[in-house]
Amino acid sequence: MVAVGSKCRVCREPAIIDLPRHNANFCGEHLLQLCRRQVEKAIADHDMLAPGDRVLVAVSGGKDSLAVWDMLTELGYQADGVYLGLGIGDYSDESAVYAREYAEQRGLRLRTIDLRDEYGYDIPTAADATRRVPCSACGLSKRHLFDAAARDGGYDVVVTGHNLDDEAAVLFGNTLRWDVEYLGRQLPVLPARDGFPKKAKPLMRLTERETAAWCIVRGIDYQVEECPMAAGNKHLAYKAALNAIERDSPGAKAAFYLNFVERMAPLLAAGTQAAAGALHSCDRCGAPTTGEVCAFCALRDSVAGRPFVSVDVVLGRTRRRHGHRRGDAA
Amino acid sequence: MVAVGSKCRVCREPAIIDLPRHNANFCGEHLLQLCRRQVEKAIADHDMLAPGDRVLVAVSGGKDSLAVWDMLTELGYQADGVYLGLGIGDYSDESAVYAREYAEQRGLRLRTIDLRDEYGYDIPTAADATRRVPCSACGLSKRHLFDAAARDGGYDVVVTGHNLDDEAAVLFGNTLRWDVEYLGRQLPVLPARDGFPKKAKPLMRLTERETAAWCIVRGIDYQVEECPMAAGNKHLAYKAALNAIERDSPGAKAAFYLNFVERMAPLLAAGTQAAAGALHSCDRCGAPTTGEVCAFCALRDSVAGRPFVSVDVVLGRTRRRHGHRRGDAA
Repeated sequence: MVAVGSKCRVCREPAIIDLPRHNANFCGEHLLQLCRRQVEKAIADHDMLAPGDRVLVAVSGGKDSLAVWDMLTELGYQADGVYLGLGIGDYSDESAVYAREYAEQRGLRLRTIDLRDEYGYDIPTAADATRRVPCSACGLSKRHLFDAAARDGGYDVVVTGHNLDDEAAVLFGNTLRWDVEYLGRQLPVLPARDGFPKKAKPLMRLTERETAAWCIVRGIDYQVEECPMAAGNKHLAYKAALNAIERDSPGAKAAFYLNFVERMAPLLAAGTQAAAGALHSCDRCGAPTTGEVCAFCALRDSVAGRPFVSVDVVLGRTRRRHGHRRGDAA
Repeated sequence: MVAVGSKCRVCREPAIIDLPRHNANFCGEHLLQLCRRQVEKAIADHDMLAPGDRVLVAVSGGKDSLAVWDMLTELGYQADGVYLGLGIGDYSDESAVYAREYAEQRGLRLRTIDLRDEYGYDIPTAADATRRVPCSACGLSKRHLFDAAARDGGYDVVVTGHNLDDEAAVLFGNTLRWDVEYLGRQLPVLPARDGFPKKAKPLMRLTERETAAWCIVRGIDYQVEECPMAAGNKHLAYKAALNAIERDSPGAKAAFYLNFVERMAPLLAAGTQAAAGALHSCDRCGAPTTGEVCAFCALRDSVAGRPFVSVDVVLGRTRRRHGHRRGDAA
């Protein structure tokens, strides 16, 4: 992680991490300081949070969501967590333990929602029923249930642990297609509107290597495994492409995302606001939607009554489909 | 290049090339047809050329510029060539032979300009004098001298051989930095304005693999080597990143560039036109410029009187500089 004998840029004590984009090494204490400052800057630059806000952190048990919960608590925000049980085999079982233990050890409030117990499905089953990539049903379920949890609990803002690598990879995907509408919505903060709570991404300026280092220095145990259902998805391919660019030009990834937010997003925002359709309440659950029934209720309809499918079954099917498609194209 | 026994999508004769983004194989004849149609579509979609236009093709001796010259001539355009001797060692000497032989064999007019003979410098010497990447002085020299050749010869439009891979890589670089002004100018055709001739890129829809195949099928000998001075430049790194994406998702590269042209460029064009500064004539050479002296004359000033430097000297220096920079960041 860092060359033997390297010194912290700030205090000249032995360094624990090198950060090529800052062209410097840092000890544990000053790595935390750097992370804290980047998060404070993100919050201030984008009006993410106000001092008295009631904050709901979407917690997965991974490094990013636990790090952002930790940082916000340390910065004095009143932040509760919400964990969503996705039913992705051992991965979900273990992730729940990390989230719960973190909250218990620090006396923080964590609400747990379980897709199987409360909604009768899980992500592998939804992926199987919809025949789309698992990340699609997963993202939809999370957005809907975190929004609902914020409304029910009277929270001012939903915070997610999306880091710079995540945001840059999503931006890369949207840019590869020049999906102007998605691009216009990819902002580090979305104000509350029409029944949707405010959403903020305070880790927008930190890489996943930095949030992992935060957890290690702070003694936070987290789920180290990647979600098994994400294997081979395009998001990971986009991360790999950007990492190759970053190795050649340290700082290129941060410039890509942060310059977009600064220079391009304002140009696109006007068009996107005009394109936002009129919203009303879902006939079924009351959530804001442009259709009669919201996408979450439509997903529930498509999986209703199906027996649970295991992770391995879905992964095997995805692999066969990929192999087939690649074979065709070769 | 193509699996044994593959058949042409059009005529079912043995195929010579597979094109994953078209999910098909093609024989020589129908590969030419595909290329021709893509070029005709580019010309029509973007009003690149009118039937009676006098066209000046910027010819490097490589596959792209010879292919576009060949296609335009075949389509009935009156197209002359202009070759610029860059003084990049054997690479330039050989490139000149390919350009000259192509023109002679087909009875086409090729004007040759030599940087050393006519302007007293070459690209290695300019790179050495300016201490910038060689591609910088090279691009500047080409733009200036091709524009001037078009004005002097009374041509309606300058055509260059930029292909889809080139354009996608440049777009990728500009996008990584969100250089909004450059993005707004990256168009497949630029109308004449203020003394600059019209410029067009008819190969915008063809990959470099397709233009190479055009040359092979048509029996055109071309310079196969990459320019030695381009080794390690970012353009090649961007091409590699896009090629990795393309391998996973055939068609992604074309979508990236063509969707930009269709969806994004119009949004940016307004802002860029407003930003274009007032132009007047260069005090020295009369070319349109925003300054008192144009960038080409400024370059000539900085290299004036210097002895010619060899390619190897500049490359050795670049390599040492790169090695040093990477060592710092590690």
